[in-house]
Amino acid sequence: MTGRRRVPRHEREQQIIDVAVQVFAKRGFHAASVDEIAELAGISKPMVYLYLDSKEGLFLACLRREADRLVAAFQGAAATGGAAPELRLHAALLAFFAFVAEHRDSWVVLHRQASELSEAIATAVAGARRAVLAEVAGLVLAGITESGDSQLDDEDADFVAHALVGAADSLTDWMADHPDQSPEGVTLRLMNMVWVGMGRVLEGEVWSPARP
Amino acid sequence: MTGRRRVPRHEREQQIIDVAVQVFAKRGFHAASVDEIAELAGISKPMVYLYLDSKEGLFLACLRREADRLVAAFQGAAATGGAAPELRLHAALLAFFAFVAEHRDSWVVLHRQASELSEAIATAVAGARRAVLAEVAGLVLAGITESGDSQLDDEDADFVAHALVGAADSLTDWMADHPDQSPEGVTLRLMNMVWVGMGRVLEGEVWSPARP
Repeated sequence: MTGRRRVPRHEREQQIIDVAVQVFAKRGFHAASVDEIAELAGISKPMVYLYLDSKEGLFLACLRREADRLVAAFQGAAATGGAAPELRLHAALLAFFAFVAEHRDSWVVLHRQASELSEAIATAVAGARRAVLAEVAGLVLAGITESGDSQLDDEDADFVAHALVGAADSLTDWMADHPDQSPEGVTLRLMNMVWVGMGRVLEGEVWSPARP
Repeated sequence: MTGRRRVPRHEREQQIIDVAVQVFAKRGFHAASVDEIAELAGISKPMVYLYLDSKEGLFLACLRREADRLVAAFQGAAATGGAAPELRLHAALLAFFAFVAEHRDSWVVLHRQASELSEAIATAVAGARRAVLAEVAGLVLAGITESGDSQLDDEDADFVAHALVGAADSLTDWMADHPDQSPEGVTLRLMNMVWVGMGRVLEGEVWSPARP
């Protein structure tokens, strides 16, 4: 027995993942080295492989944990953000932008690096995105239903959800270029642009190229 | 001399790229094989390497050509779509959705597969996206200027451009799930959501969680 505290497996894994997220965000998947991750985590390289199997296994563990955290923050805020659908949507979007602002490394890994590395990775990211899309579509549909408009349906809600989620994704780049802007400010701007527009459309205003 | 027509280098390259875009879209970069591309293009594998250097060189050639085409379609429509900024924006968005609908393989390669494969590839895609963002920001700023509102500036225009481009990107997934929807319909919905919302904000309506 050494004097070193025995760290439980789950805790050790979380420590390795914490470091790996930073290294993957900084270097990218291909350039990242397990040597560096092991060194920064203060354990041996064979130990990293023992816990997380391979560099891809490690990356997948990072992705899954960060995706779960992001989705949980989003859904939690949507569940508790208020009574009105628009308040819940606002709370959920704010939780998203706050997560990205506070966990920039996690977002870089999720957003920029998780594409075609493998089927398993693509599936993990697509699943998280689908969960968020479904949540947003549900809130938009609730907003439509509340407004009493019968012309719009779940296909429209799904359209708005895709637009909103895509806009939010893309606005994380704008946020990175404007570090002085708060997540609150970004969320308000987006709500103003999209929700106000949707409200107007619900009221019957229709834009058309024939009469701009 | 054989009876075979000598195909000029540029033309031959374009034929190889045509086939490669299909194969990359279908299989993904890693699973795609130069053997299959050569066979479908009706030339030898060494010839493919002679023309386009490597599998990555071939992929980069695909990306560059399709990105150039997409940006050219977008900018061409923006330049000729009308006098009012919103008509030009509408024409440009329509050109984008029509391109994606007509060149689904190109879009799969550009959108899904061009991420972290290499620095050169990431740079090519980021450049195309920046060109589109700048074009949209310019149109939005023109719209703001026309409205006579002095509170909004180029930072706001850049925000709206990021939201619009991100929304449009994401809506290509919605389009893939709704093959019955025309690019015209998708463009109109998006213009209604975003441009109408922006117009309302310009008129002074502000959404806030305090008074939804």
